[in-house]
Formats: sequence, C-alpha cells, structure tokens
Amino acid sequence: MTFVSSTNPATGATRELPIQETSIDEVHALVRRAGDVAADLAGRPLSWRAGMLRAMASELEADATNLVSTAHEETALALPRLEGELRRTAFQLRFFATVVEDGAFLDATVDHATESPMGPLPDLRRVNTSLGVIGVFGSSNFPFAFSVPGGDTASALAAGCPVVIKAHPAHPATSAATFAALERGANRSDAPEGVLALIFGLEAGTALVEAPGISAVGFTGSVGAGLALWQRANARAVPIPFFGELGSANPLVVTSSAAAARGAEIGAGLAGSMTLGAGQFCTKPGLIFVPVGEAGDAVVGATVEALSALGEFTMLTSGIADHFRSGATSIADISGVRALSQGDAGEHAYTSAQLYEVDAARYCGRDAYPLREECFGPLALVVRYTTNDDLRGALEATEPALTFSLFTCDHDPDSAWLTAFGATRAGRVVANGFPTGVGVSWSMHHGGPWPSTTAAAATSVGAASLRRWLRPVTYQGVEDADLPLALREENPLDLPRRIDGELLA
Amino acid sequence: MTFVSSTNPATGATRELPIQETSIDEVHALVRRAGDVAADLAGRPLSWRAGMLRAMASELEADATNLVSTAHEETALALPRLEGELRRTAFQLRFFATVVEDGAFLDATVDHATESPMGPLPDLRRVNTSLGVIGVFGSSNFPFAFSVPGGDTASALAAGCPVVIKAHPAHPATSAATFAALERGANRSDAPEGVLALIFGLEAGTALVEAPGISAVGFTGSVGAGLALWQRANARAVPIPFFGELGSANPLVVTSSAAAARGAEIGAGLAGSMTLGAGQFCTKPGLIFVPVGEAGDAVVGATVEALSALGEFTMLTSGIADHFRSGATSIADISGVRALSQGDAGEHAYTSAQLYEVDAARYCGRDAYPLREECFGPLALVVRYTTNDDLRGALEATEPALTFSLFTCDHDPDSAWLTAFGATRAGRVVANGFPTGVGVSWSMHHGGPWPSTTAAAATSVGAASLRRWLRPVTYQGVEDADLPLALREENPLDLPRRIDGELLA
Repeated sequence: MTFVSSTNPATGATRELPIQETSIDEVHALVRRAGDVAADLAGRPLSWRAGMLRAMASELEADATNLVSTAHEETALALPRLEGELRRTAFQLRFFATVVEDGAFLDATVDHATESPMGPLPDLRRVNTSLGVIGVFGSSNFPFAFSVPGGDTASALAAGCPVVIKAHPAHPATSAATFAALERGANRSDAPEGVLALIFGLEAGTALVEAPGISAVGFTGSVGAGLALWQRANARAVPIPFFGELGSANPLVVTSSAAAARGAEIGAGLAGSMTLGAGQFCTKPGLIFVPVGEAGDAVVGATVEALSALGEFTMLTSGIADHFRSGATSIADISGVRALSQGDAGEHAYTSAQLYEVDAARYCGRDAYPLREECFGPLALVVRYTTNDDLRGALEATEPALTFSLFTCDHDPDSAWLTAFGATRAGRVVANGFPTGVGVSWSMHHGGPWPSTTAAAATSVGAASLRRWLRPVTYQGVEDADLPLALREENPLDLPRRIDGELLA
Repeated sequence: MTFVSSTNPATGATRELPIQETSIDEVHALVRRAGDVAADLAGRPLSWRAGMLRAMASELEADATNLVSTAHEETALALPRLEGELRRTAFQLRFFATVVEDGAFLDATVDHATESPMGPLPDLRRVNTSLGVIGVFGSSNFPFAFSVPGGDTASALAAGCPVVIKAHPAHPATSAATFAALERGANRSDAPEGVLALIFGLEAGTALVEAPGISAVGFTGSVGAGLALWQRANARAVPIPFFGELGSANPLVVTSSAAAARGAEIGAGLAGSMTLGAGQFCTKPGLIFVPVGEAGDAVVGATVEALSALGEFTMLTSGIADHFRSGATSIADISGVRALSQGDAGEHAYTSAQLYEVDAARYCGRDAYPLREECFGPLALVVRYTTNDDLRGALEATEPALTFSLFTCDHDPDSAWLTAFGATRAGRVVANGFPTGVGVSWSMHHGGPWPSTTAAAATSVGAASLRRWLRPVTYQGVEDADLPLALREENPLDLPRRIDGELLA
C-alpha cells in the first residue's frame, strides 16, 4: 500500500497524507457503484440537480479559508489568486444550475405524425439523455476551477452523470478537501451514494480510462499525458469519447498601427498576462508577433521592463519547473534566437520569467520547431515581422491553438483579416485583450483544433461544456406516459422546444 | 490504370465503365482543390447555400428515370423502392435547405460585457463555423439516400463544407450519374469549382481518410471497413472525427400481452420489415424477442407463413450474398438453434429469407456470440423468453444498437420499463412499429452506442446531422464590423440567438 504525499513547492517539504493510492480493483468498484446510481441520478428532476450544484457551491465557500490555505501550501499560487479561483469555481457550479434549469441543453424536439414527400412520418421526439459515468482528470494549474470541483465535474453533474475524479498528484490534500465539500453538498441534497468518487495514483488513472463502466473522459493537462490516455480510450473494447484540453502556444499579434499607437501599454500588459500564475495557464500568450522597427521595439522594451520588476516565481512542482527550464533551454539554443530577459533559472520549483526574440523567417524554419511549441511557464517568444506577408507566413507555420489574440487600432486595416484568420486556427479570437482569462458564460468556447484539444468541437468551459456528457435518443410512436417528461405533449417541464419545426423559446 | 466496372447482381454481367480508379495523387489534388474553396463556400450567405441544395434536388428529380434504371441495374433493388428513395433524397436536400435558412444550427450566442462574481467579463460571442473539407463514404444499400447525393453529402454542404465523396464499388454508374446531377445543381448556383468531388477505388478511399486537408469523415457501411478507416482517422498526424454508422442487430420485443392481442398481425409485419430491400437495412429488426407459449407461437407462425410467400431475393452483390450465407450458416450451426424458415440458399447474388429460433437462456451463452451479431440480409433470429427476468437477461446480453423496438398493448405493464431500457441501449426507441423506416426530420436520431456507430452522440439522418461538420468559435471584444454576420449586434441574418442568457427564437 502506497500512501499519497503532498509537497510544498516553495519549501520542497513533503508530508505523507492519510490517503492511500487507489488500487485498480477499488477503481473498478467505484466505477460500478457510480454506474449503479446513474439511472437514479439521470432521472431526478432538473430542479433537484440544480439544487445539488448550488449546495456544492455553498459548501466550497463555507470552507474557503481552509481550502485556500491548503491549496496555497501545495501550489504556491498566491492567496488572492486562489481566493478568486475559488469564487469562480463556486460561481461555475451555480452557473451550471442556471443552465440546467434553462433546459435548452436537452434539445427537446417534437415532430407530430405527418405526411411528407417520403410518405407518412410517425410521431418522432428527440431528447438528450445523460451519457453515463464520467471520468475526470483535474489539472495541476487550477487546483479548484479545473480540478476536483472544476468545470468537468460541474458540467458532468449538470448533465446528470455521476463522476469519478482522478486527483492531480500536485495537490492531493486540496483534492481531498474540495471533494469533501462536494460530498457534503451531495449529502445535503440526498444524492445517491456513488454520485461522486475520488481516486489517487497514476495506475488508478489509467484504470479509470479503461474501466468498462466509464462512458467518457474529461481531461485537462499536458499533451504527453493527454495523448497517452486518449490512445487508451480508443484502444478499449468499447472506445469512449476522450475530451482532452491539452494547451497551446496561443499566438498574439500586435499590428503596426497598434504598436505605433500604444506599444508600451501593450507590452506592459503582456508581461502581466504571460506570467499570470507563473505562466501556468493553458491560455498563456506564448508567441508574440510584433513588427520590426521602433514601434515594435517599444512593445518589447515595455515587456522586458515590466518583467524585470517581477522577481522569482514558484512553479507548481519541481517537475514542472524542470520541464520549463529544459523547454527554455531548447528555445535559447536555437540559432537566431535572442534572449531579451533571462533571469536566474533558480532551483527546486523556483524560476524567473524569460522572454526571447526571433525573426519571422527564422521562426518558420523546419529545424526551429521547438519555437512553435508551448513552453508551460513564464516564457514568451517574440516573433518580429516586417510585412503582412511575413506575418501571415509565420502565423501559418504556427500550430492551431486554444486562442488567437490581436491588438489593433480603430479602423485598423489588418483587423478584419487577422480576425478571420484567427477563427480558422483557434477556438477563441480575442481582440485588444489578453487571452488568459476564460469567462464562464453561455458564449464561451474553450477548445480548439488539434493539437490544442483532442476534440475541436467540444468546450471545457461555459454552458456548452455540458453537451459533452449527453447522447440523444429519439422516441418513435411512444405513448405519452412512457415518454421522458421533457418530451410529453403538455411540456410539463416548461422547456424551450422545437415543435413541428418551430423553435419555441 | 484500372477502369471501374459495374456489375448487375441479378445477371452477374459485368461491364467496364469509362471511369478510372482515382490515383492517390489525384485524391490529394481534389482535396486541395476543395480546401482552396472552403473559405469562399463557408462565407456565402445562408440563402445561397439553401438555393444550391434545392437546385441539386431539382437536378436529381429531372434525371429520375435514368438514375432509377441505372441504380436498378446495379443494385437489383425494386423500381418502386428506388423511386421512393430518390424522392427521399431530393426531399432530404430540400429539408437541409430549410434547416440552413432556420439558422439555429449556428448556435449564435451573445453575452455583452458584464460584471460577475468572477470580476468583469468582456463581450463574448460564439457561433458555429464550417469545419472544412468533409470525406464521405457512401453505403451499398441505399444508392441514393446514403450514397453520393445522400445525407452525409447534403448535411456537409448545408454546413458550408466542400465534400469529396468515395463512390461505393457496388454502384459506380449510379454514383457517377447522381454526382453529375449534384454538379449541375452546383454549377447552376455558381458554386466554386471544387465544392464537390467524386473518387473511385479502395486505395483512393484510404487516401481520402489520410489526406491532410480532410477535416472529418462520414461513413455508412460495414463494421469491418468502418473500424479500419476509423483507426486510420485516429492514426493521422492530425486525427480527425470519423462518424461511422456501422449497423446493428436491432432488437425487437413482443410483450406477452401484445402477442396475445395481435400476434399474427405483428408476425406478418415483421416478415415485411426484415426483408425490406432484401433485409439490407442497417435498421433491420434482426433479434425478435417473443414469449414462449401459444401467443408467441402465433407471432412466429405468422412470420414463417408470410416469409414463405416471398420467394427469392437478389442481394446487392455476390460478395454480400456470400457473406450473408456464411453468417446464416454460423447461426444455424449453433446448438439449440432451430431453423423455422430456411429456403434455398441460391447462388450468385440470390438468396431467400431465413428465420431461426433459440431459447433465451441458450441465446445468452458465451459460445453463442454469433447469434447476437448483425447478419446483413433477410434473416432474423427469434429469441423465446419465459419470464420478464428471462427477457431482461437476454436483452442485457444484446449489443447496443441503432434501434430498439417494442410491441405492446394499451396499459401494457411492460411498456414503461422496456421503453426506458431501450433508451439506455439504442439511439431510437420505436413503439408499435418497425424500425426500418428512418424519417428525415428535426427530431430524428440515427445513431447509437458503440458498436452500432463510432460516435454515439452523432446522427447521420435529420437536422442534427449537420452539427457533425461544425466547430464553435468565440469572439472576445471583437468590433462589430469584424464579427461574422451571425454575431453582429443588429442580428442582420434574423437568427434565433441566445442574448445575455435569454434564448430568443
């Protein structure tokens, strides 16, 4: 039996927790237990489901002081950031309660029997049903918002699905404490035992993806771990959807006119965005396209100046810091790359922000591939371009991403084509702002083409993220009494529905 | 250079067509050509898109006599069936024109900048965009409705995506003729050259799935071919969604009370449904659960009697007929299986309908697996059950399917649990009807859990099938003039949208 240990990245101190790694048999038992309550959970009223999500939000808030200090000890993230993240996490649970009550996610559609050029059509009604037990892999960088109580868990519960959550090894105590809060919320709501489970350990995680009773997986994390698990999901006897949000280099373009008009302001803002949370955001702007010349120099100069005032960062784990240092080295080692700000690399989990620069032509070189990869941490690469053709070529050499940002001016001649280009290569196009913040809203799409995610049409943030955990069923000629409530003739749930082709909100 | 040949399954006569198999280089060139017009196509007004779909429908109808006779020669399907299928295909194109004009598929969502417990949220707007070039693999069994001019092509064009279609080798002349009609419709609408392409040959099909410029694939066909291509789609440097509709055994339950009340009527109807199109429907009811005893005997007796009047069937190809015969043999050879109707197996593409029977307990046997697999052709297996526990056990041993059908009576005590059970195991639950017909409608879901499809949440028929070819993009803080029309403040396309959380139809 292996006990789980928790490490403080700021001190390197490690303590053993009174938690054992979950055995493969235990994983299977927990997945079976979740499967046993799936139908009960899916069948409960939407109002009940919303109530449970709100109870969970309240329980997280009630334990905020403890949760924030536990997370601070395990992640070295600043207290105000963690307080804000916990608020976001509670808000997210409540937002999903609203989405559940709205009911449009059920996509309820009724076509009464009719004649058609194909001959008579029977009564046909479609509704989305809960998919089954969902496996959730929390990420290291958001111990609340993208971890145990985060968006995948909240959206799966909102979809009426039980969840089995794999705790991230970088914050096991936080995982256990937030899980306990979720459980208190579930118990307060008389949820069936089994609606939530938490597992620990690498082998347990693999077993979770492979467990026959799992219907889909939500994952936020590194490309390496994500793709390995994605392959296992596809290699199962019954393959399952694997929604992996793997991060990206997030290009950001400063147009010539924007650089001329407010280069210093943009540059200073960039320093803040690229180092937020020690640069450990999947939406960190990592590739900054800046024009050659004085205006562009002002952007870069302001970034360097702002970075120099920031001092050292403590990263989430010493492993992540090591990975960051080697990533930075492989960038620095490429010929043509200039180091603009390259503080002491630090030791243990400490590091400092780094800024590099390269010309657009060199950036596109076949051997310069590491320049175009994400480097997770407080680092960005500035790519200097001369003409729009030069810029376009460099952007085309860049991998698709979660986000694409542009800084422009009023009536900027480059704003239209850059916006359109961005939409072909990213899931979110940000104008005159930094991509780091990912708002929880009806309209958010947090996803993007491969390799930024394993499923470009899926989002892991916002109302639509719930759709990942649903499957439609059509009922043909079924008696009203045997139909799900969402499809009954009298619309007892008062849902927005499409009836005989007409959308009724 | 290999020429494509066309075989008449009724006579075995083969003729060479003036069409060459498409080389791998040609496939890549056609995919590139399609990619070059993807942005143009995606950017055209919805009304233009709808017009092109309607023009294609008219061109198919204008050539109906020729298309139907060509298809009859290549498939041996009856003329009235082919005439009806062509009507359905034209209807389907026009239906998608309506879906395009409706605009709800864009899922346009606007959240104005606001305050939230997470702090200020910027202006965020989401819309679905066209995914890119779609590869379509037509099926053998529907030379119109699920082939070149079928649902995958129609839905991809409706989504604003160019298509490259792999012709099914069982009806190459029909494929070429229907493609010509689609092209005339495209040309009449001044579509860009490259919006449609047709390719021939097995290697060309593999190259299509592997071509870097393909963004997703729609496939209707056998489990073997489908899974092989699905694996290739996943093995690409940039994996793509593969929507494979692979067919299933489609369980159908007759309850004790339904058998007692109208067993003979149900039995006779079953004979018609299981032999429709020589049983070559992916929705053919292949597993018939009937109670033991007199009432059940009446169901089975009526099926046997009706089958005996049907004579010989010509299958789509001699290969499909061979496969059918070996499937039938592997069922007949299992101990405990009783042949109820086992006409002459015929030769070439000829065969006759076959009905087998087995007890529920034997059906569940681990070594009886072939009984639970789809046998494509005019064959069904009757599973006789005694109690509801017996029935439930047998249903649980059955693979998930595209459809689940039940015959019940008024106030049937078994109707509720069977409906609910069916919804857990199939994409469509049919009450008191046969599953063979798949209506084109807003509410249709033609899909189901693995192994009936490779993507349980996707449908290949109905309005929602268009969603397979879309990807959302969120615009943050983007100026009105740079936004897609669907997201501009004044709603110039008059779309149903969700604004600040409120759905406005």
